[in-house]
Amino acid sequence: MEDRYPSRTGEGTRWIERKDPVVYGRPEDGPLSAEELREYEAKGFLLLRDVFSPEEVRAFREELRRLFEERAHDPSPEVVREPESDVVRSIFRVHRTSEVFRRLADDPRLRDVARQILGSDVYIHQSRINYKKGFHGQEFFWHSDFETWHVEDGMPRMRALSVSVALEDNFPFNGPLLLMPGSHRVFVACPGRTPERHYERSLRRQEYGVPDEESLARLAERYGIEAAVGPAGSVLFFDSNVMHGSNGNITPYPRSNVFFVYNSVENRLVAPFSGQEPRPAYLAER
Amino acid sequence: MEDRYPSRTGEGTRWIERKDPVVYGRPEDGPLSAEELREYEAKGFLLLRDVFSPEEVRAFREELRRLFEERAHDPSPEVVREPESDVVRSIFRVHRTSEVFRRLADDPRLRDVARQILGSDVYIHQSRINYKKGFHGQEFFWHSDFETWHVEDGMPRMRALSVSVALEDNFPFNGPLLLMPGSHRVFVACPGRTPERHYERSLRRQEYGVPDEESLARLAERYGIEAAVGPAGSVLFFDSNVMHGSNGNITPYPRSNVFFVYNSVENRLVAPFSGQEPRPAYLAER
Repeated sequence: MEDRYPSRTGEGTRWIERKDPVVYGRPEDGPLSAEELREYEAKGFLLLRDVFSPEEVRAFREELRRLFEERAHDPSPEVVREPESDVVRSIFRVHRTSEVFRRLADDPRLRDVARQILGSDVYIHQSRINYKKGFHGQEFFWHSDFETWHVEDGMPRMRALSVSVALEDNFPFNGPLLLMPGSHRVFVACPGRTPERHYERSLRRQEYGVPDEESLARLAERYGIEAAVGPAGSVLFFDSNVMHGSNGNITPYPRSNVFFVYNSVENRLVAPFSGQEPRPAYLAER
Repeated sequence: MEDRYPSRTGEGTRWIERKDPVVYGRPEDGPLSAEELREYEAKGFLLLRDVFSPEEVRAFREELRRLFEERAHDPSPEVVREPESDVVRSIFRVHRTSEVFRRLADDPRLRDVARQILGSDVYIHQSRINYKKGFHGQEFFWHSDFETWHVEDGMPRMRALSVSVALEDNFPFNGPLLLMPGSHRVFVACPGRTPERHYERSLRRQEYGVPDEESLARLAERYGIEAAVGPAGSVLFFDSNVMHGSNGNITPYPRSNVFFVYNSVENRLVAPFSGQEPRPAYLAER
């Protein structure tokens, strides 16, 4: 299959214009209004407040805590730990291993929005729960998810989106997600080549698929930076190719969220464009 | 001399109520209005916008760059580098080594405010210029300056303040100073004892004089957290004992500032309360 977005091909950084739509559906298809769809299309993300009630959020948080405890010593690669300690930071594939989060992935408040934006039926490409602790929360450097999904998973086109359900209040100062609104229009092809089994390390610390600082400075100048700030129960929908990252967190306020990636059934994975073995199913369901 | 704020005495964490005033002067003494003084007294800090013009800021920034280049390889302890590289992060004692910053320390827009708040004549206890780079800017963990100045420098009372002149825009997301408004009312005595010549390492990474996480969580719950956000040319005045810190910075936007500590001439340093040798003059002028 033609590689519309070549990256990590051994050449340097290159900017490629987006070749795919952002919004595939119409206002009459689903929950989002015409104005909300326009905002998503223009910025590459949309933050909705009060999507889940405090009671629902409490139940999700309890389930997250339960899973983190239950799997504290689980050697499965689905359980990812902090780079400098053994504290669990994320658990993948929770839509398969937790009944609570399986139901949440199917909740129309999430799935129908994904369907509407992607203009087709959808499936879960990846799911995880994240706990970013207070006091010493780690930063996450800038990246486009699509770059990785394309190169390492063989996702052919930009027809996927991420959903982050906030289980705690996101303040400006506790390491909220930072996004560059509009950056989803540009694909930044990254330098280097992907090492074999890169994912085993990249979940702890990203080394490949990272744009160079000059590109990031230019993107920030062109598009600016916005923080996804909102109370627990808010939901952020964001395009697969929007540039995002987050600062560390010295405040006592932890951040936890549930994270689903919906992919269009018209955009099923092919062989990874890196030419390597595909990543395991807990990172990219096939 | 009686130690009104014992800390690092080998005992655990302890909260001591502030025994000193916050504002010593009166509205009629100087530049700040009664309302501004009340805000400073209540919160322990005051942010004034547009204190310096864009032209003045540009001149300060040029002087900062000049000094950072000139002293890039200067082995003097006044020049402090990033923990994980040799890039210069701060230069101390610039009110003695740079004519531009000597004049700035004397500028009535800073010095007269310090005089008014501290209710007496003042002198520079410490000065420095800081450059917090973009992309990989380091965090600075929570601390009270007074704790260090008291234990390591022998500053007897809380009658000093810091002034930070912003040379770049401080956004919520590029690692602005975070403060807990009202926390200057509580002195958190820290655990441990001060190792000899602690300052040689503490400027790179603080290990002693750091409050425990439980105290910080309680302080944040009681007082909240505020970010000192404002355009270049803003000036932040903050009390010697207000709890503050800053997150790292993955954005392309660097932050640089000029930093002066004014101490009241009625609050001259005595022997350090740690019982050790005083720190050198570039950290604490005597």
